[in-house]
Amino acid sequence: MKLMKSRHPEVNIQTVPGISSINGAASRLGIALAEGDDHVAIVPARDDFAEMKRVIIENDCVIFIKVAKVMDLMRDVLRELKLVVKTSIVAKVTSDEESVWVIHELDRVELE
Amino acid sequence: MKLMKSRHPEVNIQTVPGISSINGAASRLGIALAEGDDHVAIVPARDDFAEMKRVIIENDCVIFIKVAKVMDLMRDVLRELKLVVKTSIVAKVTSDEESVWVIHELDRVELE
Repeated sequence: MKLMKSRHPEVNIQTVPGISSINGAASRLGIALAEGDDHVAIVPARDDFAEMKRVIIENDCVIFIKVAKVMDLMRDVLRELKLVVKTSIVAKVTSDEESVWVIHELDRVELE
Repeated sequence: MKLMKSRHPEVNIQTVPGISSINGAASRLGIALAEGDDHVAIVPARDDFAEMKRVIIENDCVIFIKVAKVMDLMRDVLRELKLVVKTSIVAKVTSDEESVWVIHELDRVELE
């Protein structure tokens, strides 16, 4: 959108809100992302153990996006925090190729 | 949902994803909440200057909900961080009673 605005400032841009993959995933999992005064974070997963750990500790619900490339690290962080049992993984949610992994399968997840 | 599950565990609950007020607000403002590796936080505004400041500093985009009751404090935090110019306020988004405040009106906002 930023690129379009800078290259074609004369074009009138209108946005139409949709259902985000995050809301789709929460619905698919049948969970509420937040209740009461919960803090929610939406964070791209990165190859940074300390930072990923910090984000999880400081929030009540964290949605990591782009997880595939750092799957092993994320697994290690979640294990250290004993949060594997509270983790779900959803890929290509609401599409025909949707995948949902339950917790005990976490060791076998191989995202594309 | 948690209450319903605990009181009536026999009821089969299905959730249907919708457009969240957060996505609705971003669309109404014509902005992207995140680009690249931005961190997004969704946080209930609280009467805690240091905590609100910390959340803003540590994220690239913060959506504060339930702002009305701590409007003065939020204004002070944003002023201290010189972020008033990057702030928008949206109320009752996508409804007939929708209000959007532009930055220079921030001093005059009185939310219900």
